Amino acid sequence: MIPSRVGGSMILVRQLGLRMFSTSSSAVAVVRAVSGAQCNDLLFGSRSSATSAGIVRFLRVRMESTSAATASVGGKDDVSSKGQASAPANPSDSNQMTSYWGVAPRKLFKEDGSEWRWSCFRPWDTYMSDTTIDLTKHHAPTVFLDKIAYWMVKLLRVPTDIFFQRRYGCRAMMLETVAAVPGMVGGMLLHLRSLRRFEHSGGWVRALLEEAENERMHLMTFMEVTQPRWYERALVIAVQGIFFNAYFVGYLLSPKFAHRVVGYLEEEAIHSYTEFLKDIDNGNIENVPAPMIAKDYWRLPPDATLRDVVMVIRADEAHHRDVNHFASDVHYQGMDLKQAPAPVGYH
Amino acid sequence: MIPSRVGGSMILVRQLGLRMFSTSSSAVAVVRAVSGAQCNDLLFGSRSSATSAGIVRFLRVRMESTSAATASVGGKDDVSSKGQASAPANPSDSNQMTSYWGVAPRKLFKEDGSEWRWSCFRPWDTYMSDTTIDLTKHHAPTVFLDKIAYWMVKLLRVPTDIFFQRRYGCRAMMLETVAAVPGMVGGMLLHLRSLRRFEHSGGWVRALLEEAENERMHLMTFMEVTQPRWYERALVIAVQGIFFNAYFVGYLLSPKFAHRVVGYLEEEAIHSYTEFLKDIDNGNIENVPAPMIAKDYWRLPPDATLRDVVMVIRADEAHHRDVNHFASDVHYQGMDLKQAPAPVGYH
Repeated sequence: MIPSRVGGSMILVRQLGLRMFSTSSSAVAVVRAVSGAQCNDLLFGSRSSATSAGIVRFLRVRMESTSAATASVGGKDDVSSKGQASAPANPSDSNQMTSYWGVAPRKLFKEDGSEWRWSCFRPWDTYMSDTTIDLTKHHAPTVFLDKIAYWMVKLLRVPTDIFFQRRYGCRAMMLETVAAVPGMVGGMLLHLRSLRRFEHSGGWVRALLEEAENERMHLMTFMEVTQPRWYERALVIAVQGIFFNAYFVGYLLSPKFAHRVVGYLEEEAIHSYTEFLKDIDNGNIENVPAPMIAKDYWRLPPDATLRDVVMVIRADEAHHRDVNHFASDVHYQGMDLKQAPAPVGYH
Repeated sequence: MIPSRVGGSMILVRQLGLRMFSTSSSAVAVVRAVSGAQCNDLLFGSRSSATSAGIVRFLRVRMESTSAATASVGGKDDVSSKGQASAPANPSDSNQMTSYWGVAPRKLFKEDGSEWRWSCFRPWDTYMSDTTIDLTKHHAPTVFLDKIAYWMVKLLRVPTDIFFQRRYGCRAMMLETVAAVPGMVGGMLLHLRSLRRFEHSGGWVRALLEEAENERMHLMTFMEVTQPRWYERALVIAVQGIFFNAYFVGYLLSPKFAHRVVGYLEEEAIHSYTEFLKDIDNGNIENVPAPMIAKDYWRLPPDATLRDVVMVIRADEAHHRDVNHFASDVHYQGMDLKQAPAPVGYH
């Protein structure tokens, strides 16, 4: 491997880990790989609570997996294949490599000089949420198709209310796993269309993918506050399977209808986040400190609480409501989305 | 509609356009809507060559489509429905709206003060390409699966060479319509998995979507240089239909294999861009000035030419090669992608 391409402590540790097998000095291996696991904890906010026991377990998993991988490398003996993975035997074929561990992620730092912990979003993806947005705005369904969209969403609320009751923390987490689907489906389909038709997307691919990523960050945030039970996990898998395919087909048949449905779903989301806030204010839900990921993503003050997080997330939903009703209206004008510039970066 | 949300000349023109129907002063309508069309031209690079005849045709389409939309709005008479679309009749229900034309894209400007023309990427998405990247680096296939990936890509080159011969401009444009698919498929599948499993993606969703968007920008660039013929458009549709589904299934079965295939595809892309450069240097392909979109996207100097564009695009492909071989190697170590931080923003 070319030294100039080697970087990132985790990557170095991986390579050390590989060499260690040939020396079979497991004591050293533990020390090395623990530091590797700690480095991982730095890089993945969600794992920052890992205990040292967890780290050692993680290390074991990595070691087994590594030897498993070795076995799969054409059944060579450990030493030679590891040597190959870490560095080429002969400098002349330094471009002939069987390991790409040299591609290191760029190190980023916060204003306060501390290392940037999140790989799912970067400092320039963070924003101050515009919480002054009109939350009561409602698209009155006048057309038949809009009425179907409206009542479909209203109907979907019934089982949701029955299932979650007033467990808004859990409700929010569960619904965000669904809310992140439409943007991804729409963005993907517009991306493919842009390629097929050799035409610009008017920024809509980016706008819809931004929406999907934003909703996923809501999920990553709520995960820090509440944890799903096994049957909730099962439910999410089932619901995603149905909703993804339904929305995919729906978007192909009528993007006008699909965006309208999402617009109304977001109106309902605003409602349930408002209820969430009520329960925080009347003490039914404890106003715990905001998770670190939320403070970084929405640039919240260090003393921010769950209430502040719900406020900015509700504002996000209101923005998505506008974008989707807008997209639907563009179609109602008989235009393609690309003819109306997308409100990219509309938070 | 709430005045504070009204903005963007195109949107204003839309609303003027709507009111104009009730006053039925078509002469004024033409003037207004032409300016609307010009505004669109500004916003969509690909249409910047529209002639005034084209603009008037475009205007007609928009007018027909608008009246069509009106018809669809529950058969109200023009005046009332248009009034509704532009502003609510009665201020009390100012939140009851049937038009969202108020969501305006943020206006952006270049360093030189001129307005930002591209909605498909924003100033902070542009970058100086690292053309010093090692173009000869090759992942030597040692494992059986890697050998299949390698020879599959080598086989795919045969029909491609036969079809395109040395028409590298056309070849590049056509292949970019395929090159933008894997990133989108991989990104989408990892996004959905992250939602299903309530876990972080390690930045891989973003890294793969970045790759897809980057490849699409290559296409948007080549579109300015060469135009596809009807049978080439038909071929793209057929190939996308096959490749998207094949890669989708392939990624579900073995992301390890899928990323390796893309790694080798990128190695071939580097080869054909090198041939492209040779043909520019020996005069077989005219070294035309670089399209405006390329100058803005890669921050190229004003006098940049096609050769400079091919240089930076080749560098992009080399970066994608590294990212995909890296992703495949992560899987070969028996790890999930999320365990190895993605090289986000690796250009």
